[in-house]
Amino acid sequence: MVKIPTSTIKRLPQYLEVLRQLKRAGLKEVSTTKIAVFADVHQTLVRKDISFTNVISSPKSGYKVNELYSAIEALLNWNDTSASFLVGVGHLGSALLGYQEFAQKGLSIVAGFDNRPELINSVVHGIPVYSALDFTAMALKDNIKIGIITVPPESAQLIADIMVHSGIKAIWNFTPHKILVPADIIVEYVDMFASLAVLSRRLAEKE
Amino acid sequence: MVKIPTSTIKRLPQYLEVLRQLKRAGLKEVSTTKIAVFADVHQTLVRKDISFTNVISSPKSGYKVNELYSAIEALLNWNDTSASFLVGVGHLGSALLGYQEFAQKGLSIVAGFDNRPELINSVVHGIPVYSALDFTAMALKDNIKIGIITVPPESAQLIADIMVHSGIKAIWNFTPHKILVPADIIVEYVDMFASLAVLSRRLAEKE
Repeated sequence: MVKIPTSTIKRLPQYLEVLRQLKRAGLKEVSTTKIAVFADVHQTLVRKDISFTNVISSPKSGYKVNELYSAIEALLNWNDTSASFLVGVGHLGSALLGYQEFAQKGLSIVAGFDNRPELINSVVHGIPVYSALDFTAMALKDNIKIGIITVPPESAQLIADIMVHSGIKAIWNFTPHKILVPADIIVEYVDMFASLAVLSRRLAEKE
Repeated sequence: MVKIPTSTIKRLPQYLEVLRQLKRAGLKEVSTTKIAVFADVHQTLVRKDISFTNVISSPKSGYKVNELYSAIEALLNWNDTSASFLVGVGHLGSALLGYQEFAQKGLSIVAGFDNRPELINSVVHGIPVYSALDFTAMALKDNIKIGIITVPPESAQLIADIMVHSGIKAIWNFTPHKILVPADIIVEYVDMFASLAVLSRRLAEKE
C-alpha cells in the first residue's frame, strides 16, 4: 500500500467533513476550488491530497461528491471497522466509550479496562468494562490491533508495555506522556495540552 | 509580550511534564540533554525553546528544576487561572467539565451551556449547566474570554458566532468543523480525527 504523507492524511478528514455537508445539501458535484474554500486549505494542496485517491475530476463539473467521499474513506480505511480496546475509564475514557462519531470513522471501541473495583464488570455507554488484568488474554483472543490509552499520564508507559505484549499494533495515546515502544508499533497522540498551550499563550500575548 | 513560535509553544507542555516527573522523583537540577531524552525532542530544539524563558543553565549542573518549571508555566500563562465557558454538554463536553488536569494548566471551566431541557440547570461534575440562550448575557457579565465548543460539528459555526458576539477572544474547538471568525479571535482545534486518520492509515499500510 502506498505510503501517504502525514500532512495529507491529517487533511483528509476535513475534506470528508466538507463532502458530508455538500451531500447533506444535495450537491452531486464539487470543484477543487470549492473544497479549498470550505476546508480552508490551499487549492494546490487540495489537488495534491486528492490525487492519492486516483479519482478523476471532470474539467467541466469537478469531482462527483459521492465518489470522492468513498475514495477518501477507503484511503483512510474508514470504510472498514476496526475493533479496539480502551484502558482507563475515567472522565475522558468514558466520554470516548460513548462517542458515536467513531462509528463513522472506522473505529469501534468494544471494551474498556480499568483497575478500579467499582468499574470492573460495569457497562459504560453500552460498552463492557473489564479488569485491566484481563487485557492481555482478551486482546490476544479477539486479535485486537488498536489500543486507546486514557489513564493518568504516569501510568501511560505501563499500559503501553502491556498493550505491546498483547499484540496491539497501533496505540492512540490521549495522555501527554511520551511512550516508548518498539519501532514497528504505531503511536498517535491527541495532544489536548499542546493545543491549550497555544490558546493560553496567544491570549496572554494579546492582553 | 514576545510572540513565541507555535512549534515551541506546543513543546513546552512536554517539558513541563518531564520536569513534573523529575520534581516528583526529588531531582533539583537537570541538563538540556536529559530533558531532550525524556521529552524525545532534539537537544538543539530544547535549548532554543527554553531560551524563551531567559532561565540560565549552569555549565556544571544545568537548570534548577523548580525555577525552569515556574518559568515555563509563566510563559504559557498557566500560573494564572482563566475562566472559560463550555458549550455542548454531551459525552465529550461532560468529560471536559470533569477533567481535573485543566486546573494545573491555567484553565477553569466555570459553566456549561446546552439547549437540551434535561441538562439546563443541572450540575455536571460540580459545574452548573445553563441554557445556551443565556450564554451572551452571562459571558459579558463575567467578562469571559475563553469559549470551548463541544457541540456536534454542524452547530460549531453558530456557537462560534454567538461566542464572538459575547466578547469571547479565544475559542477552543473540539469539533472538526473549521469555523470562520474575525481575524483577531484566536481559534485552536483539538483535532482528534486528524490523529485517528493517521493511526488508521498507518495501520492499513502495514497490513
